[in-house]
Amino acid sequence: MTSPSSDRYELYYWPNIQGRGEFIRLLFEEAGVTYVDVARLPEREGGGVSAILQILQADGAHLSPFAPPIIRVGELVIAQVATILQFLAPRFGLAPEDERGRVEAHQLQLTLVDLVAEVHDTHHPISTSLYYEDQKAEAKRRASAFVEERLPKFLGYFEKVLRHNRVGAGRHLVGTSLTYVDLSMFQVLSGLAHAFPNGFAQVAQDIPLLLALRDSVAARPRLAAYLASRRRLPFNEEGIFRHYPELDGTPAR
Amino acid sequence: MTSPSSDRYELYYWPNIQGRGEFIRLLFEEAGVTYVDVARLPEREGGGVSAILQILQADGAHLSPFAPPIIRVGELVIAQVATILQFLAPRFGLAPEDERGRVEAHQLQLTLVDLVAEVHDTHHPISTSLYYEDQKAEAKRRASAFVEERLPKFLGYFEKVLRHNRVGAGRHLVGTSLTYVDLSMFQVLSGLAHAFPNGFAQVAQDIPLLLALRDSVAARPRLAAYLASRRRLPFNEEGIFRHYPELDGTPAR
Repeated sequence: MTSPSSDRYELYYWPNIQGRGEFIRLLFEEAGVTYVDVARLPEREGGGVSAILQILQADGAHLSPFAPPIIRVGELVIAQVATILQFLAPRFGLAPEDERGRVEAHQLQLTLVDLVAEVHDTHHPISTSLYYEDQKAEAKRRASAFVEERLPKFLGYFEKVLRHNRVGAGRHLVGTSLTYVDLSMFQVLSGLAHAFPNGFAQVAQDIPLLLALRDSVAARPRLAAYLASRRRLPFNEEGIFRHYPELDGTPAR
Repeated sequence: MTSPSSDRYELYYWPNIQGRGEFIRLLFEEAGVTYVDVARLPEREGGGVSAILQILQADGAHLSPFAPPIIRVGELVIAQVATILQFLAPRFGLAPEDERGRVEAHQLQLTLVDLVAEVHDTHHPISTSLYYEDQKAEAKRRASAFVEERLPKFLGYFEKVLRHNRVGAGRHLVGTSLTYVDLSMFQVLSGLAHAFPNGFAQVAQDIPLLLALRDSVAARPRLAAYLASRRRLPFNEEGIFRHYPELDGTPAR
């Protein structure tokens, strides 16, 4: 599948991490739509971090974004992961067709956004402008609360959503076919398993449908090819899902 | 103005705080649309907190929400502030007409949602299930970073958005007339001034357009009547915008 229109799709996101940009990358990859991951181009081709700084400062012609990820499609410049997905996914056939389904998908995506923000704050509970090492004591306390309370609560919720989506036979969060929310759920589950292997193992037995969804997304031909490619950056300790053993729970018994 | 259709609008939100529900209340009030603030009804009329717990547990007929605020409109049950506003505001003439305007409005609303989450975490940096008193040391550190770095950054951003919206002559965040984003901005500015009077005073001179927007929203006849009514709950130390003097910055010189 090629781009459904002649639009050129540009993504502006930090070039060395999955981060929040990965939710957008996964959408393009599953759709088979050509996109330019601008900041991963060499500086001499208009890439690098300076391309991000430039679009953040642009004004007048379009609304300035607050932070990456940002996409540019024709004259539109859009930030905020959930806004971007809501805009792009229907173009690629990866959103529900009906209004109710679209509202539900967006609602679930925003709940994933909330979860991702909480994950971020496990290693940065005080300030994003301080190093992790300078807020490690607070991080331990926050991560403990996250792993013991919030992680089971969020994943239990999404498992329930899957179980109750009877038209989707428990295979999709919304509706009867794959949507962007399923892709984002895959990413969140992968990230959680990376960052909190012990904490994740503690809840794994309670989320069989989520694990099956994760595996089915990973096995989709385009996604599998992407995940095996060099375009998929590895998780690392610069991104959102960081593996700091001291922030993980205790091993499952 | 009455409801544009025969729909009955129900809001489910904690009855004793402004909190995130206030963004929805402001929309209904400015639109002059009749709504039922369900949990503020007496229990014997189906109100109280038990009404919220009931809709949170509902399943099968609709997607279970993760958390309030929640609205019910006909057969639709919708959660997440930004999703609710995006759904309702166009019905009430309080959203931009064009796609670009709608995308921009939603993007700004999600940035306000991010800001509100950071405000919440100034008093709950470790866990929502712990009392403030049990995370006071961490709260002081987080609030200091918020007041000194994040508050000026966010408000400077929104001031810039206003300044660059030439079609709106600096009076509206998006487009040429009032939208739900302006209402939410009013609420955030009011809350910040309540919670952080010193911190807010430090940035006030840098945000003249935002302050004018806040005042013009407060002076709109329907809003002014609402703000003076008993339907408007006062800010308090159960909500998101809490005034704890020890978390505020130092007085402006």
